[in-house]
Amino acid sequence: MAEQIQEKNRITVEIYGHSYKMVGTESTGHMRLVASIVDDKMREINVHNPSLDSAKLAVLTAVNTVHELLKLKEQVEQLEEQLKKLKD
Amino acid sequence: MAEQIQEKNRITVEIYGHSYKMVGTESTGHMRLVASIVDDKMREINVHNPSLDSAKLAVLTAVNTVHELLKLKEQVEQLEEQLKKLKD
Repeated sequence: MAEQIQEKNRITVEIYGHSYKMVGTESTGHMRLVASIVDDKMREINVHNPSLDSAKLAVLTAVNTVHELLKLKEQVEQLEEQLKKLKD
Repeated sequence: MAEQIQEKNRITVEIYGHSYKMVGTESTGHMRLVASIVDDKMREINVHNPSLDSAKLAVLTAVNTVHELLKLKEQVEQLEEQLKKLKD
């Protein structure tokens, strides 16, 4: 089989008023979606905490997202366990 | 049944050299874990991008975490579909 060369996509996205260069093997659509979710989350936190500077706002966005991530990881583990039981 | 009052936990955590007050119904252990994951991720990105300021570092941390989150959501959907098929 021919060697697979995974091309990298490069785009510039805008998050909370700043431009960021994103590089990845994901589609540009996926990268734009990720950027727009982060932008949305930062704006949402800003509504409730208008005095926070953008660094703290971004840290809180990361905190909320890591929290969601841990919850989803638990859900994946539970689903995998259920699947295993059904297959046994 | 008596009304359930869910107590809120309050802690102060340190993320990338700054203190943050966290409030939530999650255990303080969970909140500390979330904070330490964000701190680790920011330090890891800083190793590869030492010129970024902490706001951009935190935004990139949020970007990476949202990317992971979307991948995990796909995984949850696939697992739920598999489970549904096995149960039908």
